[in-house]
Amino acid sequence: MAGNSFGTAFRISTFGESHGEGVGVIIDGVPPGLPISEEDIQPEMDRRKPGQSDLTTPRKESDTVIIQSGVFEGRATGTPLMIILHNTNTISSDYDDVKDKYRPGHADYTYQQKYGIRDWRGSGRASGRETAGRVAAGAIARKILSLQGIRIKAYTLAAAGITCENYVPEQIEKNPMRACDPVAAKKMVAVIESLKDRGNSAGGIIECRIEGVPPGLGEPVFDKLEADLGKAILSIGAVKGFEIGEGFKVADMFGSEHNDEMSENGFLTNHAGGITGGISTGQDIIFRAAVKPTASISALQHTVKMTGEEAEIRTEGRHDPIICPRIIPVMEAMAAIVLVDHLLRLGAQKSLQMS
Amino acid sequence: MAGNSFGTAFRISTFGESHGEGVGVIIDGVPPGLPISEEDIQPEMDRRKPGQSDLTTPRKESDTVIIQSGVFEGRATGTPLMIILHNTNTISSDYDDVKDKYRPGHADYTYQQKYGIRDWRGSGRASGRETAGRVAAGAIARKILSLQGIRIKAYTLAAAGITCENYVPEQIEKNPMRACDPVAAKKMVAVIESLKDRGNSAGGIIECRIEGVPPGLGEPVFDKLEADLGKAILSIGAVKGFEIGEGFKVADMFGSEHNDEMSENGFLTNHAGGITGGISTGQDIIFRAAVKPTASISALQHTVKMTGEEAEIRTEGRHDPIICPRIIPVMEAMAAIVLVDHLLRLGAQKSLQMS
Amino acid sequence: MAGNSFGTAFRISTFGESHGEGVGVIIDGVPPGLPISEEDIQPEMDRRKPGQSDLTTPRKESDTVIIQSGVFEGRATGTPLMIILHNTNTISSDYDDVKDKYRPGHADYTYQQKYGIRDWRGSGRASGRETAGRVAAGAIARKILSLQGIRIKAYTLAAAGITCENYVPEQIEKNPMRACDPVAAKKMVAVIESLKDRGNSAGGIIECRIEGVPPGLGEPVFDKLEADLGKAILSIGAVKGFEIGEGFKVADMFGSEHNDEMSENGFLTNHAGGITGGISTGQDIIFRAAVKPTASISALQHTVKMTGEEAEIRTEGRHDPIICPRIIPVMEAMAAIVLVDHLLRLGAQKSLQMS
Amino acid sequence: MAGNSFGTAFRISTFGESHGEGVGVIIDGVPPGLPISEEDIQPEMDRRKPGQSDLTTPRKESDTVIIQSGVFEGRATGTPLMIILHNTNTISSDYDDVKDKYRPGHADYTYQQKYGIRDWRGSGRASGRETAGRVAAGAIARKILSLQGIRIKAYTLAAAGITCENYVPEQIEKNPMRACDPVAAKKMVAVIESLKDRGNSAGGIIECRIEGVPPGLGEPVFDKLEADLGKAILSIGAVKGFEIGEGFKVADMFGSEHNDEMSENGFLTNHAGGITGGISTGQDIIFRAAVKPTASISALQHTVKMTGEEAEIRTEGRHDPIICPRIIPVMEAMAAIVLVDHLLRLGAQKSLQMS
Repeated sequence: MAGNSFGTAFRISTFGESHGEGVGVIIDGVPPGLPISEEDIQPEMDRRKPGQSDLTTPRKESDTVIIQSGVFEGRATGTPLMIILHNTNTISSDYDDVKDKYRPGHADYTYQQKYGIRDWRGSGRASGRETAGRVAAGAIARKILSLQGIRIKAYTLAAAGITCENYVPEQIEKNPMRACDPVAAKKMVAVIESLKDRGNSAGGIIECRIEGVPPGLGEPVFDKLEADLGKAILSIGAVKGFEIGEGFKVADMFGSEHNDEMSENGFLTNHAGGITGGISTGQDIIFRAAVKPTASISALQHTVKMTGEEAEIRTEGRHDPIICPRIIPVMEAMAAIVLVDHLLRLGAQKSLQMS
Repeated sequence: MAGNSFGTAFRISTFGESHGEGVGVIIDGVPPGLPISEEDIQPEMDRRKPGQSDLTTPRKESDTVIIQSGVFEGRATGTPLMIILHNTNTISSDYDDVKDKYRPGHADYTYQQKYGIRDWRGSGRASGRETAGRVAAGAIARKILSLQGIRIKAYTLAAAGITCENYVPEQIEKNPMRACDPVAAKKMVAVIESLKDRGNSAGGIIECRIEGVPPGLGEPVFDKLEADLGKAILSIGAVKGFEIGEGFKVADMFGSEHNDEMSENGFLTNHAGGITGGISTGQDIIFRAAVKPTASISALQHTVKMTGEEAEIRTEGRHDPIICPRIIPVMEAMAAIVLVDHLLRLGAQKSLQMS
Repeated sequence: MAGNSFGTAFRISTFGESHGEGVGVIIDGVPPGLPISEEDIQPEMDRRKPGQSDLTTPRKESDTVIIQSGVFEGRATGTPLMIILHNTNTISSDYDDVKDKYRPGHADYTYQQKYGIRDWRGSGRASGRETAGRVAAGAIARKILSLQGIRIKAYTLAAAGITCENYVPEQIEKNPMRACDPVAAKKMVAVIESLKDRGNSAGGIIECRIEGVPPGLGEPVFDKLEADLGKAILSIGAVKGFEIGEGFKVADMFGSEHNDEMSENGFLTNHAGGITGGISTGQDIIFRAAVKPTASISALQHTVKMTGEEAEIRTEGRHDPIICPRIIPVMEAMAAIVLVDHLLRLGAQKSLQMS
Repeated sequence: MAGNSFGTAFRISTFGESHGEGVGVIIDGVPPGLPISEEDIQPEMDRRKPGQSDLTTPRKESDTVIIQSGVFEGRATGTPLMIILHNTNTISSDYDDVKDKYRPGHADYTYQQKYGIRDWRGSGRASGRETAGRVAAGAIARKILSLQGIRIKAYTLAAAGITCENYVPEQIEKNPMRACDPVAAKKMVAVIESLKDRGNSAGGIIECRIEGVPPGLGEPVFDKLEADLGKAILSIGAVKGFEIGEGFKVADMFGSEHNDEMSENGFLTNHAGGITGGISTGQDIIFRAAVKPTASISALQHTVKMTGEEAEIRTEGRHDPIICPRIIPVMEAMAAIVLVDHLLRLGAQKSLQMS
């Protein structure tokens, strides 16, 4: 049943598989008049694409965006944007071995169980390639947000057992881990390169800060802002956890520590992470996500064939030993999409509000 | 803008405020023919209600469920169930002090900013009282699941700095913390009673296990099962984090450790928590949620008035020093609602499937 | 599967059956600050209720509205309104004969086929009684619209073979047919009273005019304003047709006749009925709906029992020989709900528009 | 705000403008395993394309469908199908005159009012070209239906003042009007060719029959089958009316005439048009739609410029003097989409039903 759309007032619908004709997205609800060109989107695609460093797969993806509709004379018309990225450099024969075996940690088994059929070439729809459409839509969303003074910045907070100790925002895009601490970044790179040599992979934690958020975003009770952010982030393939503000640390805190007190100048702290009662407070929104180690490893693993027979498998091919650096633009994109959706919903409310 | 409904094929819409006439829910999509009576729902309400132990507010809520529609001669007819719980024992004067002050950690400030008006009596719509409707709907969902052999069990895993070391399921409902380890439970109670005496509160972590899940539940790519579970759980007031399987521990794991290998007899491990690629594997689903310390504490805190003037506040009245024991039935309810929704969606798919 | 909600930004969910505990509605998306009391709603309920004249069933329904949530100190808070009307004067024994027979023209057969169970008392959920919740929600919607200068007026245009020849708006609420022509109304009454005496019933056509509509309402391409109005009106039990502007007459018109030309002062004609390309033009919106003759007649008819055995049936009891006068407030309600929904959606768009 | 998607369980989202890069559709919810190729779709595109006869615009559109995703080794995988049709033969200079003038009967004025910007080339998104994506999706839906034994057949019932007197189904696709009566068809052609010579256009009525429908389709109360069909049909550009069964004729009928009585062998008549209480009866579904005369005529008309200044306009270029023959595949497509959606929804219900 239909499940490939996200959002209410600003809605994206993605399509495409790793080794099919291409991937892309329809974006419905783009504000009319917004100046848009492929140049607004391409830099975000480039941040997501493979081959940026030794830590990412050397697989080449052109990731050239083409806007097929919804823009006229350089501005959005209010009709849906369709953006497509044609697949190139797809080598299906890389995947001959997985055609009838289930790769551990991959969606091969569940897709087969659910659908009775699966496109086994490069994980098909379950590939990280699907997120290209999200990043393209996110670039549009980020442009809308930037005009409202809202900025989104995600970075690697921890990876391969190493945690950042400093927050140096201007260094984030300058190291291959997109870590917020250049010293920790170097250590991460060393560990991960060693893991890569041994055919293994690592996981990590991404943190995201959103600045310039107005108060009032979020719709109680089910469409709370953190609930929609959580769904958006948990819908990204490798994500296994989401927390906001103090997150899981709240288990060790007292009410007197966690409550954010106020003075004339506003909140004195931000333990809540910028959202209370499902509605933005006007403070920075801060959330974190857990990213599992890449499932594709070349170490030998036990598995079964589609026939049920036991087998062994090595996932050869070109894979990322850690996905954190490339998942960062995807998280920023999803967060941006949620915020634009809720900005429009707040706009609807305010248009008839009497108080 | 509308945000008080949850679900697609099985959809609940809640209404009501803490100190209004009552709270309740419309449940749309209940399978016709299902035997239903108030007796199916009342035990779940009783698990959620206050006054069950010294750890919960002594406030009395009748929480007597009344099914107003959708049932005929003891069976669901396929039309919507409306279930209402009338409010009783509401003492609005308890809240006179908060009428024009914002309580730290509460939604007072954000509701006022968003709506320009708020029902200040007992937190209004932002009260935990709102979850009564969810628990009533969850009782229906759980009955549907039990007929499919699916069981949901949540319990306190950690609270007030103490973590369970054993999993003793038959002890869960026998201790006031609903903790899975009776020894840890005793320690938790001691700490929390002491906190309560000092007008303070504690947070905790809830774990939830779902057994008997068939493979194939979940709709890629945005309505992944963990994404819908995450949204459901994060839409509960005090929740600040959600993780599935190994959750945030994945940051310290290798791919070779995290991947769940398979043999002829099925999966050898369950690090993924029962979901891969957004689709249930057929293993147990295991997730955890972080629950913040109750915001209502009687310790003196800094705040501001609606006028912007600085002030101090004590949240007097009858409050829970920890909300974990009472939030457990709410989490079970939300998880059950998500599962029934996805069972129906899978049923739709299978009805026309050709592979 | 869930189907009892309507609307996107302004969403209603109705519940209840003819002879159950009551009927009602949750309204989600009411603008905060709107002054609301039961007195805003009751007059609309009274226009819909039976027993207003010899042309409506003498069955008494109290139709007393109770607002259970969403209003605080006389104003909407932005949280959902739940409105309930308790059923009274329900005589289930009236329906003993239909318990195991299908009444011609009624939904008995289809509900039984679809659900395998049906509440046979007074048509259950398929009863016109269900529309009480819609009318209550419509009263709120109409109040919102009136503050924007938008007025909705429906009236009987034709019934029992007689068509109005004049449009005298101030006479509409003064005749039992709610016809726009008092002379035609008298003729209609005479024919219908005669039909009633013979145990028969009549159908008719309702026309609806909406004045004061701003341009820009409606969302291409599927949520065109006329498509949403059409769905809203066709979702009312007895409606068999919907047309806008010239409607079915367009089959006999040339493009040169149908096109609405413009001058400096605006449109010269309104053949389109106030909507072009799915978007309101700013002119009056004019639509019509066909209402079938009441299915409940006391004439003897052929039918079958649930067992499949042939039988005869007379639908005794208290029934309307024509439903037009009572369906008028329902149509106005549904039209109002569609307009508020689209006003909010336009408000969302305008809040971020750059052109 | 988002409005370019249709359907719940089977959902289509269209994109594209008349003179942009192309038009197309994402189809979400296609049953996995369904055999699909471009050859399933192309014949429907060919029925919709211009240039089929003297009655349709001689404009050439290649209308070559390309399936970009969702199909693997000739079968649907359960992931979304994206189908695109690239625009060719687009001559924007044809539209220079309409760049700053509003064409009567067109959406130029309302798009400009709503969005503050419009793609004036060939009506942009408001062009009939948008329906190509619907027809492509409809071809998939029709294939699904045909496997269930459900057939959809639409035809011209009346046009240019001439009404069919016979129903000769095998003649429908053999005359350029797609009329069900070959004698009437000839008369229609004669009148319309004469109109065309004078730069004018005509409207008509399409009737649609759906055979082989199982009972139980449709979800009370708002998603009644006729309400969803009505919305689907009214969302097609030129449609001004929708009626089911006897439609507007019910105004002249008695209850005793309109009620469909039953015998052991089923219903004795089908005045209701195959739907009662919003649910299919198992009989043929019969509906009709009113299609306005083509707005693009070369006769001189009054209008205004975007500046507000009065002007005259002739819509030169290549236009259909009647749109009925080409709108038929669009209506069949939309009806098919509604039916597949409701088949899936019924499948969901039945999967957990206990009665």
